[in-house]
Amino acid sequence: MRKGDETRAAILERGVQLATRIGLEGLTIGRLATDLGLSKSGLFAHFRSKEALQIQVLDAAAERFVDQVVRPAVREPRGEPRVAALFERWLAWTKSSSGRGGCLFVAAAAELDDRPGAVRDRLVELQKGWLEMIGIVFSTGIAAGHFRGDLDPDEFAHDVYAIMLGFHHAARLMKDPRAEARAQGAFERLLSTARRRRATA
Amino acid sequence: MRKGDETRAAILERGVQLATRIGLEGLTIGRLATDLGLSKSGLFAHFRSKEALQIQVLDAAAERFVDQVVRPAVREPRGEPRVAALFERWLAWTKSSSGRGGCLFVAAAAELDDRPGAVRDRLVELQKGWLEMIGIVFSTGIAAGHFRGDLDPDEFAHDVYAIMLGFHHAARLMKDPRAEARAQGAFERLLSTARRRRATA
Repeated sequence: MRKGDETRAAILERGVQLATRIGLEGLTIGRLATDLGLSKSGLFAHFRSKEALQIQVLDAAAERFVDQVVRPAVREPRGEPRVAALFERWLAWTKSSSGRGGCLFVAAAAELDDRPGAVRDRLVELQKGWLEMIGIVFSTGIAAGHFRGDLDPDEFAHDVYAIMLGFHHAARLMKDPRAEARAQGAFERLLSTARRRRATA
Repeated sequence: MRKGDETRAAILERGVQLATRIGLEGLTIGRLATDLGLSKSGLFAHFRSKEALQIQVLDAAAERFVDQVVRPAVREPRGEPRVAALFERWLAWTKSSSGRGGCLFVAAAAELDDRPGAVRDRLVELQKGWLEMIGIVFSTGIAAGHFRGDLDPDEFAHDVYAIMLGFHHAARLMKDPRAEARAQGAFERLLSTARRRRATA
């Protein structure tokens, strides 16, 4: 990594932390400069606009998500083990994000859903990519004979997403000690509906 | 209704609309006064503080939710018809809120989950009340013999909540045309798992 890239990565890392705490909309070049103890003009040279900064922060968070959730999960055997690993690592991500402002993507979704523009577009693009990834991993489970072939992988992805949003709400807002057990229970029921029955195999 | 109460109700009605659009955190006495074309000091006499205003706006939204969702649903026969009516009316509420900034409660949950204070406390109280209401309605369905007696009504409430959060996300952020059908499908699957089987009845 070149020096400039390292600096940029370090700045974006801090940007992700700050956005998670104060919201993506509150993340301006000035605010991040203050947080980093850098000059605003220096940061401006890196990012040019608030929107560009916010988009790069989303991308940096997505890269971290891929590192922590997607890459390790796809090393598991395809089919149910891979789907289960994806869910477990995603849950761990949501839990670890929960200490400091929650999952950036969940918070940004509520902030940006009615604010058209380039930042919202990028968020939607990233979320689409993630939903598609869940669908693809589920599809390989159909191909592997683990899951019923009549199920819609996009619907499975939607349902897993809803479970995770329910977990985020129960854990963060409601401080419900059963939040994690409930998310796991709901996922287990979803899997058991999706499993191909031995008898018909 | 006395004149003062009517004025207060009209102000809060506008406060709910504004908070839904700009977020509860952005709702200040000054901002609402500007929106209503009233003097800030006049509004201050009504509400005394930003927190008091925000709490009363949450209460006003909750009252409207009770009028539109809870009251009509509990007029349905107890058991599955009442549970289904609760879900359908809640879905309709979330859809109708979707035009103008989404459901205030969902947006406020993401905003306030990491901001301790009286406003967050009231939001949690209102959400707890709503989750308990779903659980109670489900319990009467167990008592009526419609649902399995081994199920946990609080878990059912949690799972329905997750379906609604998934719908809100898919409809508002992702503009997914299948959002409503998926929410209904997920709810139907939840009900079919909960139904007491005829064979064991």
